[in-house]
Amino acid sequence: MIIVWGRIDVLAAHVQEALRLSLEHVLRSRLEPGCIAHNVHVDVENANTLVFHEEWESMAALSAHFSDATSAQFVDAVKRLAVGAPELRIFEATQIG
Amino acid sequence: MIIVWGRIDVLAAHVQEALRLSLEHVLRSRLEPGCIAHNVHVDVENANTLVFHEEWESMAALSAHFSDATSAQFVDAVKRLAVGAPELRIFEATQIG
Repeated sequence: MIIVWGRIDVLAAHVQEALRLSLEHVLRSRLEPGCIAHNVHVDVENANTLVFHEEWESMAALSAHFSDATSAQFVDAVKRLAVGAPELRIFEATQIG
Repeated sequence: MIIVWGRIDVLAAHVQEALRLSLEHVLRSRLEPGCIAHNVHVDVENANTLVFHEEWESMAALSAHFSDATSAQFVDAVKRLAVGAPELRIFEATQIG
């Protein structure tokens, strides 16, 4: 399976808007083929930092997700609320416990 | 590397205490050998749900972490504030992007 970890630091004045956009993206993404999990969280150490955890059945499913126009729209919209560049890391993962 | 994903649902009256204990645990764990990352977050969809994301260099490092008395004390303490059993999943992971 594929795990995606993402982080975005948002301008304090725009946290609520970023949360709204992120939650829309999460709920929409869960309906896509191959999506096992898609969640957004607030870092306990920084209320302006949003952290995403996603699980996908395959890289093909994740690629389709990234290619979806609504994903690109979300990234564009949330980047405009951000401080610095978002971070995204993709892992090939096997559950062992 | 090893990724750990954990989730605990906390009684609403005890969220602040659970956050305090969790943050202590996170900061302490980061100092342990082989710890790459250790973070705690609040689920945007449920303010009573705490989600942990940890990265460790090896299963040996994670086993040593689990064997540490302070980890066991944290788990015991936070379980007393929880609704239901905490969830914990361990992944062998390779970053591919």
